[in-house]
Amino acid sequence: MPLDYLSQNRAYEGEQFVCSHQSRETGTEMTFSVYVPPHMPGIKLPVLWYLAGLTCTHENVTEKGEYRRACAEHGIVFVAPDTSPRGEDVPDADEYDFGKGAGFYVDATQEPWAKHYRMRSYIEQELPEVIAAEFPVDLERQSITGHSMGGHGALTIGLRNPDRFRSVSAFSPIVAPSQVPWGEKALGRYLGEDRAAWREYDAVALIEDGARLDHLLVDQGTADNFLEEQLKTGTLSMACAKAGMSPEIRMQQGYDHSYYFISTFMAEHVAWHAERLGA
Amino acid sequence: MPLDYLSQNRAYEGEQFVCSHQSRETGTEMTFSVYVPPHMPGIKLPVLWYLAGLTCTHENVTEKGEYRRACAEHGIVFVAPDTSPRGEDVPDADEYDFGKGAGFYVDATQEPWAKHYRMRSYIEQELPEVIAAEFPVDLERQSITGHSMGGHGALTIGLRNPDRFRSVSAFSPIVAPSQVPWGEKALGRYLGEDRAAWREYDAVALIEDGARLDHLLVDQGTADNFLEEQLKTGTLSMACAKAGMSPEIRMQQGYDHSYYFISTFMAEHVAWHAERLGA
Repeated sequence: MPLDYLSQNRAYEGEQFVCSHQSRETGTEMTFSVYVPPHMPGIKLPVLWYLAGLTCTHENVTEKGEYRRACAEHGIVFVAPDTSPRGEDVPDADEYDFGKGAGFYVDATQEPWAKHYRMRSYIEQELPEVIAAEFPVDLERQSITGHSMGGHGALTIGLRNPDRFRSVSAFSPIVAPSQVPWGEKALGRYLGEDRAAWREYDAVALIEDGARLDHLLVDQGTADNFLEEQLKTGTLSMACAKAGMSPEIRMQQGYDHSYYFISTFMAEHVAWHAERLGA
Repeated sequence: MPLDYLSQNRAYEGEQFVCSHQSRETGTEMTFSVYVPPHMPGIKLPVLWYLAGLTCTHENVTEKGEYRRACAEHGIVFVAPDTSPRGEDVPDADEYDFGKGAGFYVDATQEPWAKHYRMRSYIEQELPEVIAAEFPVDLERQSITGHSMGGHGALTIGLRNPDRFRSVSAFSPIVAPSQVPWGEKALGRYLGEDRAAWREYDAVALIEDGARLDHLLVDQGTADNFLEEQLKTGTLSMACAKAGMSPEIRMQQGYDHSYYFISTFMAEHVAWHAERLGA
């Protein structure tokens, strides 16, 4: 399928692209952004995936994430997909935390969501093929990060595919969606009431069930309004401790849930991934 | 007059504020953003003013300018005002390049604009008082920058007040508004048809009339769609050469007029000002 190039802007000597394509997984047109840093012609670069949070599109991190400087310095391609299928044909719930803008990186099994809400397969299978066909990326060197719902996405995709990602990080992630209101609502409606089906979409449950990550970094602001009710970072710390994992989980004093927080620590995340990507 | 704090977010160990206040100059409520970097209690910091371009508010650079990292590193307060008066009482033209969002940093003399469109006095007189009363800034150490119409603002305010600003820089500025469509329209309507009155709002004319700057840095993208018709960077280069000024005017290959361009070179501008501010 051909890509439509919606925009291209020079930045930090590289190029920031925004593209759209017809997705086989979601059955809709999907938009994403890709930053390609300056590089020697002919070489292939490691890639860092960034999954956004509730209500977001590719735009939020592309405008406010402050990743380009670090990606240019380390020679890393940065890909930011949308958070759900879009379009008039796609069922929606008119709620900020379910439906459009809230795909939760699952393949829905329940109606009317199952046809289009296939963000897991879109991110895990389709988009890497699309990116590799069009941009100079080396799929042997991938890492993944994300924010909030997208932190949940990064953790669960990483835990299910430990051989595919050299490193996983997250900003203020939902770590145990089965145990919090956002997650119970989304997983219950997309996947149905049988909670056993939720476990592969829950980072803490995946770890309890045996999944492991060698390289995991989490930043969480202490002034984040969602920390107590929705994010519950401590649940991840405990699950990792029980499992013998040694993640870096950093509580950042005074930071909230916004892109002001993300942008502050983005360069550190990119540098941390770069080390593990050999970039 | 008390300030309303609309938001406060921790970023790079400092605080990003957005505030509004009732302005005596514009007779309207005005909104601006201020980034205060981490600093020792009790000390006063140098300040860098950033004037935005057509259609912008304080938000554009606050979200997309990527200045906080450099300002935190150098200990500089960064202030981003709006580009015009706002509100239902303010006359508008329903055009992107005149009226609201397009104050051109002038004190209008023509009706119906004269009452509210007083962005020159707002930026030169009122806002520094407001900022100094509320934030830890040292008005003995000021520098100014801006983009496009705001680059025009930075250049002309700097040229009229050479003792007040240690350094002046601009991204893709309108350098000779009297000679280009955007400027002819705006200056003609705000100031009337007598072009003599335009000269104090035209950087090239100010230099021709004897104004000088010791420290001037301009970055201009070569792929900027407005370069030939509206910006005419070469006109500034020639005026400076005739006047014996030695600015740094850098043509940046392949960059356009967007915040992708601005953010790429923002840290260099902040560092350049920091050197001259003793920051």
